[in-house]
Amino acid sequence: MTLIVQKYGGTSVGSPERIDAVAEKIGKFRDDGDDVVVVVSAMSGETNRLTSLAQEITEQPIPREMDVLLSTGEQVTIALLCMALKKRGYAARSFTGGQVRILTDNSHTKARIKEIDSSLMRAELDQGNIVVVAGFQGADDNGNITTLGRGGSDTTAVALAAALDADECQIYTDVKGVYTTDPRVVEDAKLLKSITFEEMLELASLGAKVLQLRSVEFAGKYKVPLRVLSTFEESEGTLITLEEETDMEDPAIAGIAFERDEAKLTVAGVPDIPGIAYKVIGPVSEAGIEVDVIVQNAAADGSNDITFTVKRAESDKAKEILDTIANDLKAKEVTLDRRVCKVSLVGVGMRSHAGIASKMFKALADENINIEIITTSEIKISVVIEEKYLELAVRALHSVFELADSPTGNEA
Amino acid sequence: MTLIVQKYGGTSVGSPERIDAVAEKIGKFRDDGDDVVVVVSAMSGETNRLTSLAQEITEQPIPREMDVLLSTGEQVTIALLCMALKKRGYAARSFTGGQVRILTDNSHTKARIKEIDSSLMRAELDQGNIVVVAGFQGADDNGNITTLGRGGSDTTAVALAAALDADECQIYTDVKGVYTTDPRVVEDAKLLKSITFEEMLELASLGAKVLQLRSVEFAGKYKVPLRVLSTFEESEGTLITLEEETDMEDPAIAGIAFERDEAKLTVAGVPDIPGIAYKVIGPVSEAGIEVDVIVQNAAADGSNDITFTVKRAESDKAKEILDTIANDLKAKEVTLDRRVCKVSLVGVGMRSHAGIASKMFKALADENINIEIITTSEIKISVVIEEKYLELAVRALHSVFELADSPTGNEA
Repeated sequence: MTLIVQKYGGTSVGSPERIDAVAEKIGKFRDDGDDVVVVVSAMSGETNRLTSLAQEITEQPIPREMDVLLSTGEQVTIALLCMALKKRGYAARSFTGGQVRILTDNSHTKARIKEIDSSLMRAELDQGNIVVVAGFQGADDNGNITTLGRGGSDTTAVALAAALDADECQIYTDVKGVYTTDPRVVEDAKLLKSITFEEMLELASLGAKVLQLRSVEFAGKYKVPLRVLSTFEESEGTLITLEEETDMEDPAIAGIAFERDEAKLTVAGVPDIPGIAYKVIGPVSEAGIEVDVIVQNAAADGSNDITFTVKRAESDKAKEILDTIANDLKAKEVTLDRRVCKVSLVGVGMRSHAGIASKMFKALADENINIEIITTSEIKISVVIEEKYLELAVRALHSVFELADSPTGNEA
Repeated sequence: MTLIVQKYGGTSVGSPERIDAVAEKIGKFRDDGDDVVVVVSAMSGETNRLTSLAQEITEQPIPREMDVLLSTGEQVTIALLCMALKKRGYAARSFTGGQVRILTDNSHTKARIKEIDSSLMRAELDQGNIVVVAGFQGADDNGNITTLGRGGSDTTAVALAAALDADECQIYTDVKGVYTTDPRVVEDAKLLKSITFEEMLELASLGAKVLQLRSVEFAGKYKVPLRVLSTFEESEGTLITLEEETDMEDPAIAGIAFERDEAKLTVAGVPDIPGIAYKVIGPVSEAGIEVDVIVQNAAADGSNDITFTVKRAESDKAKEILDTIANDLKAKEVTLDRRVCKVSLVGVGMRSHAGIASKMFKALADENINIEIITTSEIKISVVIEEKYLELAVRALHSVFELADSPTGNEA
């Protein structure tokens, strides 16, 4: 018998009708003889509604009480889903995070799971029940309600799958799975049949935000087979695996991620001395501005340019900070380019294929796209380019690396 | 140090602004040095919203899951109230019914409290915290969420007061307390300073629905001093006591209750044989129709009239049932009077004052009001009269028994 953990997000359970449709979907797995544990999020809009209530009371809600408040969202969904399952003749029982014994630390609003006692769930499954669990929440040693932070329902699902040694953890969402790139940019972007955890991490952090990053890390750590698939369409989705399953002869690019609305700041002509990067980046980070790509390039004359990117919306603030410290840094100039974007190739196959970077640069050169910054990691190459070339660059790379032709296991 | 348990209903906590006002009220008691345990209901409208969601899924919601669903309503309020208290500088912590260890049986949607472990609450109070508890809910032996049924927050408050041996249990509502009769009918109806549990039970069941009946029984049983008072206006409210505190020389009528929209059915001329009352009333009750007053009066000729009242909305259905069984019963006639009402005098002082009934009947006769049915209990006399005389009768009785002149402890 197969044990499957399924997670349905807020959009999937956004109305009583949709909850009913989810119940039908779950029922099919049960009909096939699978044991099923279901994790659900709050109905879409509910978490925002609750947060607004709190904000009407105070600008500084107490974290402990925010958890008591927000955890009701998922609790509503588990009850409604069990009713919908029962209506269709399936035995089902709902449990809050605390009831199903998801033990967390006491960091309210961002708790981490310490332990899960799976005996209750096993007993329920043994009795033929579908187990429906509220995502995103748990309880600490003292029985206080905790939440795992926004999007934490994915983490709940993966953690339950790990605790139950489930055969598969299925994350249902409003997309069919992970694509080679954004189908809105490249029409023939392909759904990936599989992708490795590492690739998924790089793609997620680069913008293909299908899954919460933490749950992917978690699944990788506990070797939980994870599948992303659509609630609304029939599809096998994308399996996230430990092993690189592609043909080793192949360049093995999993996909192309990109980030719009970036801005590039350069502090030019600072002295090439230890600690200079920290002096530039430190004040920007301390102001709460997220810094993305950082490159430093020392010139032969001992002077130094430090360039980094931030979100465009925060670029003016970052520029102001740099202007105020430019004198102290003995910088020649601070410049801001507000119209850049980032395009990244991701694939574990890069490790064994030296030619990928040059092939990427040639493809961009052939389109007359100037590369302003290059950064690389073991399984990723990112370039910062003018934003107006974004679509052109992504399409060119998608074509050159033959992603539409599915040599890496894409769907036909 | 005084320990007070306070309960605020759905209207009192119906919006973030109102929750804020409740926090201010609670804070004053804390400022006076009282220890405070607060029980709250769901924000008004919330329980109906949740019930509607369930009804969109199924016409037969599972009781266990209804409890999981509806208990979220109070959970939202406890969190928001704690935030509002904290904003004003008061230490407060929220608890669900299960967390505060309100142990119930497993009769979902209508559970009964078996036991309360007060040690957690005492520890919180000792640390200087205001304890905020979700009303209406508990947990069974297996940790399943249960609810006490609609209005159960009053019961929670009384039960906590009993478990903590509180000095007073205060039920805040949208009325100032218990009146001698409905102020909308009698302008100079007076707020009662005190009333006995027995009187309160009779008044509650007769329509002055200030408090949930069960909580009054519970308070009487555990000798919890209970006070009903207004959330929105300053007032001492009405204290519900064990002891009859009125002057024994006084007629001691606590108040006048009434019930509109009644209908009277008479089955005339049935034989005076054992079981005949059951044969008449049984089929009506079995059809789910609530029967109120019942009188039977055997004539000297051995025939018999049985008369009873039901809610007007159900009277046609009751008539139909009686018509179908009239032949079997050998009844001469079945009649329906759709335009009656019931007026009741309530007071523990009746026990020792024989003249009250005759004084009541004379007052009605003086107004030319015909009495159609009379029933009496130890502390209550009810009459059924034509509905058009309702206001006239209530005002006449209020005046004759001098309720406005507050001999029974009414406010000036």
